[in-house]
Amino acid sequence: MSRRDGKKWRAGVLGATGMVGQRLVKLLADHPWFELTGVAASERSTGKTYADAVRWHLEGPIPEEARKLVVKDLEPTLDCDFVFSALDSSVAGKTEEDFARAGYPVLSNSKNHRMDPDVPLLIPEVNASHAEAIRVQRKNRGYDTGFIVTNPNCSTAGLVLVLKPLADVFGLEKIFVVTLQALSGAGYPGVPSLDILGNVVPFISGEEEKMEAEPQKLLGKWDGSRFIDAGLGISAHCNRVPVVDGHLECASVRLKKTATLDEVREALRSFEVSPELASLPTGLKHPIVVQNEDDRPQPRKDANTGHGMAAVVGRVRECPLLDVKLTLLSHNLVRGAAGAALLNAELLAARGYLKARISNNARNAEPVTR
Amino acid sequence: MSRRDGKKWRAGVLGATGMVGQRLVKLLADHPWFELTGVAASERSTGKTYADAVRWHLEGPIPEEARKLVVKDLEPTLDCDFVFSALDSSVAGKTEEDFARAGYPVLSNSKNHRMDPDVPLLIPEVNASHAEAIRVQRKNRGYDTGFIVTNPNCSTAGLVLVLKPLADVFGLEKIFVVTLQALSGAGYPGVPSLDILGNVVPFISGEEEKMEAEPQKLLGKWDGSRFIDAGLGISAHCNRVPVVDGHLECASVRLKKTATLDEVREALRSFEVSPELASLPTGLKHPIVVQNEDDRPQPRKDANTGHGMAAVVGRVRECPLLDVKLTLLSHNLVRGAAGAALLNAELLAARGYLKARISNNARNAEPVTR
Amino acid sequence: MSRRDGKKWRAGVLGATGMVGQRLVKLLADHPWFELTGVAASERSTGKTYADAVRWHLEGPIPEEARKLVVKDLEPTLDCDFVFSALDSSVAGKTEEDFARAGYPVLSNSKNHRMDPDVPLLIPEVNASHAEAIRVQRKNRGYDTGFIVTNPNCSTAGLVLVLKPLADVFGLEKIFVVTLQALSGAGYPGVPSLDILGNVVPFISGEEEKMEAEPQKLLGKWDGSRFIDAGLGISAHCNRVPVVDGHLECASVRLKKTATLDEVREALRSFEVSPELASLPTGLKHPIVVQNEDDRPQPRKDANTGHGMAAVVGRVRECPLLDVKLTLLSHNLVRGAAGAALLNAELLAARGYLKARISNNARNAEPVTR
Amino acid sequence: MSRRDGKKWRAGVLGATGMVGQRLVKLLADHPWFELTGVAASERSTGKTYADAVRWHLEGPIPEEARKLVVKDLEPTLDCDFVFSALDSSVAGKTEEDFARAGYPVLSNSKNHRMDPDVPLLIPEVNASHAEAIRVQRKNRGYDTGFIVTNPNCSTAGLVLVLKPLADVFGLEKIFVVTLQALSGAGYPGVPSLDILGNVVPFISGEEEKMEAEPQKLLGKWDGSRFIDAGLGISAHCNRVPVVDGHLECASVRLKKTATLDEVREALRSFEVSPELASLPTGLKHPIVVQNEDDRPQPRKDANTGHGMAAVVGRVRECPLLDVKLTLLSHNLVRGAAGAALLNAELLAARGYLKARISNNARNAEPVTR
Repeated sequence: MSRRDGKKWRAGVLGATGMVGQRLVKLLADHPWFELTGVAASERSTGKTYADAVRWHLEGPIPEEARKLVVKDLEPTLDCDFVFSALDSSVAGKTEEDFARAGYPVLSNSKNHRMDPDVPLLIPEVNASHAEAIRVQRKNRGYDTGFIVTNPNCSTAGLVLVLKPLADVFGLEKIFVVTLQALSGAGYPGVPSLDILGNVVPFISGEEEKMEAEPQKLLGKWDGSRFIDAGLGISAHCNRVPVVDGHLECASVRLKKTATLDEVREALRSFEVSPELASLPTGLKHPIVVQNEDDRPQPRKDANTGHGMAAVVGRVRECPLLDVKLTLLSHNLVRGAAGAALLNAELLAARGYLKARISNNARNAEPVTR
Repeated sequence: MSRRDGKKWRAGVLGATGMVGQRLVKLLADHPWFELTGVAASERSTGKTYADAVRWHLEGPIPEEARKLVVKDLEPTLDCDFVFSALDSSVAGKTEEDFARAGYPVLSNSKNHRMDPDVPLLIPEVNASHAEAIRVQRKNRGYDTGFIVTNPNCSTAGLVLVLKPLADVFGLEKIFVVTLQALSGAGYPGVPSLDILGNVVPFISGEEEKMEAEPQKLLGKWDGSRFIDAGLGISAHCNRVPVVDGHLECASVRLKKTATLDEVREALRSFEVSPELASLPTGLKHPIVVQNEDDRPQPRKDANTGHGMAAVVGRVRECPLLDVKLTLLSHNLVRGAAGAALLNAELLAARGYLKARISNNARNAEPVTR
Repeated sequence: MSRRDGKKWRAGVLGATGMVGQRLVKLLADHPWFELTGVAASERSTGKTYADAVRWHLEGPIPEEARKLVVKDLEPTLDCDFVFSALDSSVAGKTEEDFARAGYPVLSNSKNHRMDPDVPLLIPEVNASHAEAIRVQRKNRGYDTGFIVTNPNCSTAGLVLVLKPLADVFGLEKIFVVTLQALSGAGYPGVPSLDILGNVVPFISGEEEKMEAEPQKLLGKWDGSRFIDAGLGISAHCNRVPVVDGHLECASVRLKKTATLDEVREALRSFEVSPELASLPTGLKHPIVVQNEDDRPQPRKDANTGHGMAAVVGRVRECPLLDVKLTLLSHNLVRGAAGAALLNAELLAARGYLKARISNNARNAEPVTR
Repeated sequence: MSRRDGKKWRAGVLGATGMVGQRLVKLLADHPWFELTGVAASERSTGKTYADAVRWHLEGPIPEEARKLVVKDLEPTLDCDFVFSALDSSVAGKTEEDFARAGYPVLSNSKNHRMDPDVPLLIPEVNASHAEAIRVQRKNRGYDTGFIVTNPNCSTAGLVLVLKPLADVFGLEKIFVVTLQALSGAGYPGVPSLDILGNVVPFISGEEEKMEAEPQKLLGKWDGSRFIDAGLGISAHCNRVPVVDGHLECASVRLKKTATLDEVREALRSFEVSPELASLPTGLKHPIVVQNEDDRPQPRKDANTGHGMAAVVGRVRECPLLDVKLTLLSHNLVRGAAGAALLNAELLAARGYLKARISNNARNAEPVTR
């Protein structure tokens, strides 16, 4: 998939120095469709090269193509065809609107616009058709080539991916879920070590509210003019545990149809995406992996399954209160953030929602031809 | 409270070198009613002094009165008036019966006899009246002065203590609970560090079954001849987390009566034991402590509340599926094991269930007088 | 030990909301000679009650006598007879001088004045005679009743305490030391969990320099007018490890006299302080504890030895390069900070360096009599 | 590099189910010169498929070629051209001799034969010429095609690799080293989590002795008939820290020639292996990586540098006692064990020390032709 001119789409990253931004920068290195051409961040970093501005947390060095990019401010003049937003919610709301209005497609990981009535909250394997809301959004807001598409909260992403085949095959009624969430979900510096070493913190601000609200939209419908909630009963308890990457979730679900445990396992195991989705560079044909060992999945051992894009499920068993208990795991920074936004961008590129913008360099070089 | 002869009751500990056994040895040091006079363990340790046999895990030195006791085998000839059993379940079943038949009251932390139809599963603050089953047990089994009384599993203990006032005030219907359990609950050597450092293990063998069964008996009734289950719906997910001491549990409950969150908090906060229980050396007048901070309780900071005998509750809030969500914490080795058995012994001493046995030393010294 | 009027000395704590300040507040609760009457901190906290201003990190609740004290700013008008300074080094230098000039004895844990030529760097068990420099300091600086006395860096404190009997008995030449330091030494929020979970950081800013300089003064002499360095060769490597409390140090030492390992162990084990020091409330008669187990001392198990005031030594063995290898441990917040300052205050109280200041309340109550 | 018949060398792994054995199995998957054809282990595992016998600890699945291999006992009849030994030292000594005598080249990670006077203790980048001792060994012991070659202890490996260029360029006199060693070095189940969570253990049995002895042989010479020690002064302190992989070491060294810190850094940075070594599949052209950040190397972030085969050096600075302080890190299971044995095998394959053995399958298939 490429631009009409055969070149790669030029991607920008807003909030490029944070934990999610770094993951995006890494995932964009050697991406077959996209190249990183712009990075932007808060004032503290602007004017420096990316290599100087970032405190790099990922294994391996900073990708070469990113090192020398100069970090720009958050004005909508970044040299790229579209942007990923990994901004803090304190600035994401307005900044993303500014970029969308200026013509940039915005793939946002921030919470601000997720529940807007005309903004898709998108997981391609779950609700790709919600992308159609972009048309209404543009009309409502007077956006031209720009738009905002969001991906869910890191703990919602894995859960909903696992719920999707259950909803499709058996119908879903209620979900009880308790999370054991990794440190990297809190960003950097994030959780002080004195608070979490040999400890657990049974609270993450705003997380339970997101987990109880976002699945309603994700598993609901876009009827051409508005989103219709899935009408699920959802209860979430969220905890922080001393794990680097990977959110583990204990879930019990009530299904609409009776199902044996083997049927549930089979529904999860056989879940397969459409050929369109399977052809996306970051897509997995089978995004749900079922483990049979009693004591899996485990964050340190399984979070990178499917390059961090799989949801790993284990311990499918009967629930005395609802129908089925299971444990699930997904990589909070990949499937739950950077990889999620990237997959959304790939889907929208494949569906023709991205346009080439004139490069700043081109503009500077050839001012007359415009 | 003391024996008729004004002396302290002489206590023995079966399985004295394990994690729970060590806690018992420590709790018995300077106990006002009991003194430690016998320790027994598996073959590997017999014949050594306790100081030589034990790999001591607790803060502070081995209590002086325990250091020089010679570790005996598990034959029911230990020099004491009653025994605590902290034995592994592979040997606890028969050994405890042998001791009871030989006339020893047995206060057991092991799982083997907990669900026996004539064995009390006892938490004094919850179901002190179940002690009456001892009479039936003695009759059934032909025990004379001996009997077996058990305390619940470490993760059940804290949960049921917190459920008790809710059951009393509002009535209980359903409980959904997910545990984040400490390493010390698995004994020593227990969980290998490579399995748990920076990780979570979503499985503890047999634990969910115990948590779904034991509360039925604990919150049920003794009708004079048999235990009647509480008839609760309970669903448990159990996880191991890298924490030293203190099991944290996320619970949602459905009450029979409508209650505001403030009423629930007040029922928990005002829970107060009877004067009889408050006078036990290990008893707390208010065994439930309610915290108001958003992010508490936390195992490393709160597990020792009330010398490890309190259940700490926080985050009382609405549950979209059931009625109330809350987080609770209790010390798995104290409230959930050693302290639980000790409190049971104190209750039974106060109620006259313990008798002085003739000391081995006395027998040796004065063979004629017998 | 008390004031002439028979009342306790009134103590203030500068920087009372930080990690070391909290320890001081806790240690001052129920202190037989001192009572906490004033707390001061940076602007952010002033005007609040201590309970509202502090994020309490210690086990157990905030001491009652501290809860309602109103946090003052760092002006030298605090209502107390003397102050402890647990201030950040960015403000400690000038603030401590201001208080001393205003007549307050200042017991400082901050690094700023430690190496000043007229300021004692004091460990009572090591160099109590250095307190005499106070006279020169007062004269030099024009202080009246006030003065500044400091305690060493947290990693220096334990090391020098252990070196003291070796210096006394055998003479010291060279010390090689590598530290494994606890998280609480970095304050709060301190080390981000993402930097240290399952990891080690081989760097602590400024720490090696302090460890190579401070022992020279501590083990040196006060000749009546100046401090004379001990002339030791010292090399230090400092590391941060994922431990909550307790700095572990691996040291090799070259002695002046030949000594067997048993002689070294005996010198450490038999180290006993003077009756004057043993009578201080926070003093230990034997401040060095020698362990015989192969694998001790360990921070989580041994840091609280002697209520955190002992230095624990183990693994005394031959060094192929110098003479003796050993491992030592001390509690960085007690022996290495709050307890160190407190012990210094006790020594100076016993030696008559503290004077009662007129209480602000008294002044307010009886303005005429002044 | 391949056998004369153009096929890959067939490798066996003794102790294939342990931590080091698993690493070898993983490293042999897709190896360009070697293929895994035999796995052997202790009785408990024999007769099972490797997939059934192993508790797999590494990220990613068990390699396909290993899954179905049947685990054999430790008799020298394994179907392969040579063997790696990752055996426990309790059985390694005799088993390795049996295999060598039966004609198998043995690449051993075990300690038993490391210091034998006719067994090379080999790090290709350090002392490749020591391989010549194989001739003497064969003669001494009457081995035909077989031999034993060992790699050093996991904590020695990284240290000596870093010392090599310093010895070459400046000459070495003394080394002081303190290790902070990872959990995986203790095997599985290895260190109990209750011993190490939030803790440090200042003792690893036998480790200091190995670190003080092995470098003498590694940095010494083979004179054609015997090994001549390097005559270094070495003092080691060894500690276990809660880190999964990667041994960190704090070292101070005394050089023979005066050198500036820049010269030392340059000697390390410019260290480059011979073309022969650089062409080995597991070899790195520059096996030492120098980092400039103050706070690196760190185990969790840097242990996989150079696919785990690099030694990473940081914090090169002056030592007040010796000449230079530095911090180094290497992956204990790769550079310090499995990768070390593999690199040795590659060197010996390249130098013609390996011969094709007749396959058991071939023998079975064509018994007459023999």
